[in-house]
Amino acid sequence: MSDTREQILEQIKVQGDLVRQLKATKESKEKIDEEVSRLLALKAKLGGDATPANQKFTLKTPKGTRDYAPQQMTLRQGVLDKIVQVFKRHGGEAIDTPVFELKEVLTGKYGEDSKLIYDLKDQGGEILSMRYDLTVPLARYLAMNKISSIKRYHIAKVYRRDNPAMTRGRYREFYQCDFDIAGTYDPMLADAECVKIVAEVLDTLDIGDYVIKLNHRQLLDGMFEACGVPANNFRAICSAVDKLDKSPWADVRKEMVDEKGLDGATADKIGEYVRLSGGAELVEQLLADEKLKAVPNAVKGLEGMQLLLKYCSLFGLEERISFDLSLARGLDYYTGVIYEGVLKAEPSAPASPVKELHNGDQALEQSGTVGSVAGGGRYDNLVGMFDPRGKAVPCVGVSIGVERIFSVLEAKFAASKVKLRTNDVEVYVASAHKGLHEQRLRVLNQLWNAGIKAEHSYKLNPKLLVQLQHCEEHQIPLAIVLGDAELAQGIVKLREVTTRQESNVNLADLPNEIRRRLQK
Amino acid sequence: MSDTREQILEQIKVQGDLVRQLKATKESKEKIDEEVSRLLALKAKLGGDATPANQKFTLKTPKGTRDYAPQQMTLRQGVLDKIVQVFKRHGGEAIDTPVFELKEVLTGKYGEDSKLIYDLKDQGGEILSMRYDLTVPLARYLAMNKISSIKRYHIAKVYRRDNPAMTRGRYREFYQCDFDIAGTYDPMLADAECVKIVAEVLDTLDIGDYVIKLNHRQLLDGMFEACGVPANNFRAICSAVDKLDKSPWADVRKEMVDEKGLDGATADKIGEYVRLSGGAELVEQLLADEKLKAVPNAVKGLEGMQLLLKYCSLFGLEERISFDLSLARGLDYYTGVIYEGVLKAEPSAPASPVKELHNGDQALEQSGTVGSVAGGGRYDNLVGMFDPRGKAVPCVGVSIGVERIFSVLEAKFAASKVKLRTNDVEVYVASAHKGLHEQRLRVLNQLWNAGIKAEHSYKLNPKLLVQLQHCEEHQIPLAIVLGDAELAQGIVKLREVTTRQESNVNLADLPNEIRRRLQK
Repeated sequence: MSDTREQILEQIKVQGDLVRQLKATKESKEKIDEEVSRLLALKAKLGGDATPANQKFTLKTPKGTRDYAPQQMTLRQGVLDKIVQVFKRHGGEAIDTPVFELKEVLTGKYGEDSKLIYDLKDQGGEILSMRYDLTVPLARYLAMNKISSIKRYHIAKVYRRDNPAMTRGRYREFYQCDFDIAGTYDPMLADAECVKIVAEVLDTLDIGDYVIKLNHRQLLDGMFEACGVPANNFRAICSAVDKLDKSPWADVRKEMVDEKGLDGATADKIGEYVRLSGGAELVEQLLADEKLKAVPNAVKGLEGMQLLLKYCSLFGLEERISFDLSLARGLDYYTGVIYEGVLKAEPSAPASPVKELHNGDQALEQSGTVGSVAGGGRYDNLVGMFDPRGKAVPCVGVSIGVERIFSVLEAKFAASKVKLRTNDVEVYVASAHKGLHEQRLRVLNQLWNAGIKAEHSYKLNPKLLVQLQHCEEHQIPLAIVLGDAELAQGIVKLREVTTRQESNVNLADLPNEIRRRLQK
Repeated sequence: MSDTREQILEQIKVQGDLVRQLKATKESKEKIDEEVSRLLALKAKLGGDATPANQKFTLKTPKGTRDYAPQQMTLRQGVLDKIVQVFKRHGGEAIDTPVFELKEVLTGKYGEDSKLIYDLKDQGGEILSMRYDLTVPLARYLAMNKISSIKRYHIAKVYRRDNPAMTRGRYREFYQCDFDIAGTYDPMLADAECVKIVAEVLDTLDIGDYVIKLNHRQLLDGMFEACGVPANNFRAICSAVDKLDKSPWADVRKEMVDEKGLDGATADKIGEYVRLSGGAELVEQLLADEKLKAVPNAVKGLEGMQLLLKYCSLFGLEERISFDLSLARGLDYYTGVIYEGVLKAEPSAPASPVKELHNGDQALEQSGTVGSVAGGGRYDNLVGMFDPRGKAVPCVGVSIGVERIFSVLEAKFAASKVKLRTNDVEVYVASAHKGLHEQRLRVLNQLWNAGIKAEHSYKLNPKLLVQLQHCEEHQIPLAIVLGDAELAQGIVKLREVTTRQESNVNLADLPNEIRRRLQK
């Protein structure tokens, strides 16, 4: 092995002293040059940075981001595998897009949230931004390739310069797992399947009780119209309603009146509607509502909800869904059904910010939620925004917010003190005494070539106890112990790590015997 | 379904005309306001971008990047799965790091290539850059978490503002698959395992004949010293040698002499060495070389090579490796063994730039290579550059360049005209006649709940022929055909798509029967 950095730094110091001494004693130029050359050679060994000034900045990942250690990766891979399984069960195909897009692709798609987009520095050439979600890149992909129908999933990281709250799973770099159905189809069939997918994902992840809230953008717009909101204020008021899952009604009302110029009476009418939630009977009640039934948008939205609820009930989702007029979703591009999967608080969990509509209104507080873990909806006009002739491709989709799910699972595992295995090694190849490293390499080669997962110590003469401890710590099921006496007879000891039972196995039969043991 | 974008644009036009007409005919303010409000409502329907100006920029992905369509994703996932299998066979644990780092983390690590780093725009807060490889983030991770040993793999995209050559698999956004062994161990044991991993990956991917070239940075430095290169010029001359896989010797010599100020005689001495390649016998020959044996660095490097070649031969790699004095590797941070896996040209493939040492030298030209697909080496001082006290963690690792492998495989598949399946659907649920969509949803729900991958048309009344064609196009093995007559008896038709054979199955027994069929 080459010298360590410390050793080289020490050698540089010594050599530097020598050079200074030679110069002080006025040695021959030839002699001095020779020693200077040695000094430079030593400095060159330090690699790129010839001056060994270690950095003065704090060693950290950028704000709002994190590394995944092996334990966390194991957890994450388990979650993603289960989600992919659900997506494939519904016929999803995978696609991938670049992590950044031309900035223009993202412009005008996110409303108030555009300020959270990460831009790349202009280094000459194109102006780029990091993707903010996977939906706009999908729309760009469909328009660019003139694809009019696809059922695709996409699992990748997205980027938002938001205020991170990392303990609750809110990051600036985070995974989204998206499933979208694009194509011109009959109403609500694809939409209901997306709701079913949310339920299947949350069921398979088994992270606690949940509810899927449903609403419809056309109904929201119709309701705003019925309450007397000017049409050019729909999106702004919608954006205020969206905050009801974090802020009490009083604050939201204040935003509507003070910031968005709504008159108080109109806001109060909205307040009456957005406190409603229920099932098919609520749709009936609203279809009979005098104010709503006069507004075509509201009637269309309610009829859509009626069909959606029927399909959801055929999918066995009645107990899992709630038609909820306070659900608004932040993004501008939705045009139809919207939904959100929300975990309910564990009875023992500490109180978290819950929706309060009016002071003293306990109904929703009791159903206290720990946050949204999935969301989506219909966006029929987004692809058309990219098509030069405005050709639309209707889409509906869902996005699973896995970071919050990771947070919930990490907390669970930390509490349970179960240690997840982070490697898949099946056999550890150990030496019983000195001088066996070449034999170890031969046996390892035999095992690897047979497809068996195997490792050893990278020391020539490791202690047997240390090797066996490694197996126990890393939950490796089997160990082979090599010794001269056995090798002379063409055999090795095979040890079951948990029981510590050992038996002799012929070297030639080793891969087969290991497979037999692993199957048990 | 809501109106399409085109329909809304048409409605806006009509409504706009009406408003203009009312204003022209000086209708009452109340009347005009009412119609203006309708106009605004229509505009609001278009979502975020109220002015329906479709974009004027070209729809494309950023320069040097690409989308992965489902076919390409299937290929890519197959390659990555095989690589992960090899990494896990050697006990690798996965980690992940953010896509960007504090800019300072990357500073001073890449020598001449630093100009290729993507920077993020300064939007207030930290100054960030996109990762350039996975090695520097690993070193940052180890130093930050004070980890002194790990065997980790990391599969993720990295970013370089290079001149893309996309048909040959050179992108600005591309995957790296890295396996690294960090820790203080005995010489060459971990290094030889990395070479073994390269061989296993290239064997399992079955993309043609290859050679793994090996060299040693200490030997290179010793050889430069023996030839009379001033020590402060080692890295620059090394960087010139690195270009030998793309440029002929004459050009490289010119760079050494004209740009890097080497004298011609020294360059010619280097030229004699870098044309050498071979096996253990070459090490012996060089250990006896008068010039080299006088230089401690050269002797250390050669002794290292001797040990590495011995271990590689125990791993059965003799036919796969070549000790090659022209291998230099571009990056500054290597301190010991370096290696590169290179595909040999198919006999029928067109000639590609090959290494030419001297005019008329055919030896290397005949082994004409299509390019490097894996590379790596030892870097013992990189982690120490991040540690405030300079504490080193010796590392050795390998990076698989999968984009070139994807390119090779994509070309192979395109030539073979085999269509890869891009979904895993097992059963398609079809209607034989109108009015069966609710029955379809019931059957689908039964199948999904049983874990079976199933899909249907999202149309209420699709034609049977269209449904069956979908199955054939998408290579779905089974179809269920629903009809009123059968449903009345509690049965459905189960059809094998390739043979077109149909048989009746009880609805209750459907999931079991499907599983039986799929196992066949």
